[in-house]
Amino acid sequence: MTRIVHFAGLGSMGLGMAHSALRAGLEVYGFDPDPLRVAALTAAGGQALTPDSPAAEILVCVVLNADQMRAALFGPEGWARHLAPGGTILGCATVPPDFAREMEGEATRAGLHYLDAPISGGAAKSAEGRLSIMASGSVEAFDGAAPVLDAMAETVHRLGDSAGAGSAMKAVNQLLAGVHIAAMGEALSFAASQGLNLARVLDIICVSAGNSWMFENRAPHVIEADYTPRSAITIWPKDLGIVTAIAGVANLPLPVTEAALTQYREAAAGLGAEDDAAITKHIAARAGVKLPGDG
Amino acid sequence: MTRIVHFAGLGSMGLGMAHSALRAGLEVYGFDPDPLRVAALTAAGGQALTPDSPAAEILVCVVLNADQMRAALFGPEGWARHLAPGGTILGCATVPPDFAREMEGEATRAGLHYLDAPISGGAAKSAEGRLSIMASGSVEAFDGAAPVLDAMAETVHRLGDSAGAGSAMKAVNQLLAGVHIAAMGEALSFAASQGLNLARVLDIICVSAGNSWMFENRAPHVIEADYTPRSAITIWPKDLGIVTAIAGVANLPLPVTEAALTQYREAAAGLGAEDDAAITKHIAARAGVKLPGDG
Repeated sequence: MTRIVHFAGLGSMGLGMAHSALRAGLEVYGFDPDPLRVAALTAAGGQALTPDSPAAEILVCVVLNADQMRAALFGPEGWARHLAPGGTILGCATVPPDFAREMEGEATRAGLHYLDAPISGGAAKSAEGRLSIMASGSVEAFDGAAPVLDAMAETVHRLGDSAGAGSAMKAVNQLLAGVHIAAMGEALSFAASQGLNLARVLDIICVSAGNSWMFENRAPHVIEADYTPRSAITIWPKDLGIVTAIAGVANLPLPVTEAALTQYREAAAGLGAEDDAAITKHIAARAGVKLPGDG
Repeated sequence: MTRIVHFAGLGSMGLGMAHSALRAGLEVYGFDPDPLRVAALTAAGGQALTPDSPAAEILVCVVLNADQMRAALFGPEGWARHLAPGGTILGCATVPPDFAREMEGEATRAGLHYLDAPISGGAAKSAEGRLSIMASGSVEAFDGAAPVLDAMAETVHRLGDSAGAGSAMKAVNQLLAGVHIAAMGEALSFAASQGLNLARVLDIICVSAGNSWMFENRAPHVIEADYTPRSAITIWPKDLGIVTAIAGVANLPLPVTEAALTQYREAAAGLGAEDDAAITKHIAARAGVKLPGDG
């Protein structure tokens, strides 16, 4: 029997995951407040998720933040009640570990399983079914989620038998990734201020101790002056805000992360919808440093 | 005829480079204020550099900072005057680009060539002749330095035909490397505060978007609680201080770099001689977070 999967959230990540699920032969129903996103799913062979849709075994929640996830799962119009008894929820947003534990508790009370399963890899890998997932939850949650995990992930990192560890691990990754992009912005602005050719800087850093995954990935956007958002600046005030909030609960100051967060908050005012490599423009502009694409 | 090379500075980098020069068949004379370092060179087949040593074609200056370099080259007991006419100086310390240009000017006035040639790669690669060198200078400087570059470098990045660009590129690399180590310290402290297993965190970050060269290289030191200095914390107040000083001249604020610099300055008070991965201990201690090796 074909398995039924519901998707709550059809943004660039969710839609890509839904496509991967369709390719794997799953029966996919999806909801998004934007009807154009739902239309994109139905055009690909999926169906609109409504209160009248058949109950699913799996609900994949790919929304922006904790508030959206609480509403999408357990709010007045939440989709958890449309799961079959014993069904499994995948919580794929970046949220605080305590919030993931709260969702696991709600799911348990509703007779459901919850997999704390934040995703990593970007829209392209999402569409290819090659995401990296940092997951924690019960054996039942992993088993229940297996058909969808198999369809959309290249790698599933199993981090423990209850919710929280997956989200904590995702926060560690976002701390590093967010700081590294901001460091790239400072490094490229600095290099430009010293008259260095940025394409040459990229070549050299890629084989030097200063390299990072994000530098290799994002510096070309600056060099080509192409700020089409593959991943937008607005992600970072949210994700680094989660990191510093969690750290605050642990009384752990993170001054470097906080400095990066401040940069993203400032940049989001004017550049929020641009690619996150545009943090470089924000940094360079303060000193009137010219970047590729500047007049 | 065997070429004569003088080394000013036989620290962990300089001694390794002198060994590489010896292996390449060069005749090596070395000076260091610490007689034990000179003894290590003579034990390996080199000789002590004194005012009576034969004049050299090449002088390699591998000291800690600009003040030491000015003294070692052109001070009252400087070694530049012991070069044969038309000889070449390699300036291998991390210094401001303006200072490198000043040294090039001094060398030119003395009838010598100057290669702005900061080195990267650490003590192990230094000993293996596998350094990475970010170099700029005249064609004559590159030609004059060639026997030593061939002996000690795996990669020579040619950045231009006058001094300054090499040092600017090195500063870009140090900005990134220094921020990335501090980010690692925050990420591992954060991960430990959330109860994550740090060895597992390392495995996952190494295949995730949060990865950096420094994370892969330094996180194992924290996980093994081994703070034997491969590269000490004290390097970073100096190198990031150079970066922010250069940026200050360009009126370019670098808040993330400055936050990292503050961490290193604070940590240097008690942990300066330890491996730079010990920045993690400094960060974790503020919140009482336990790391591997803590009681």
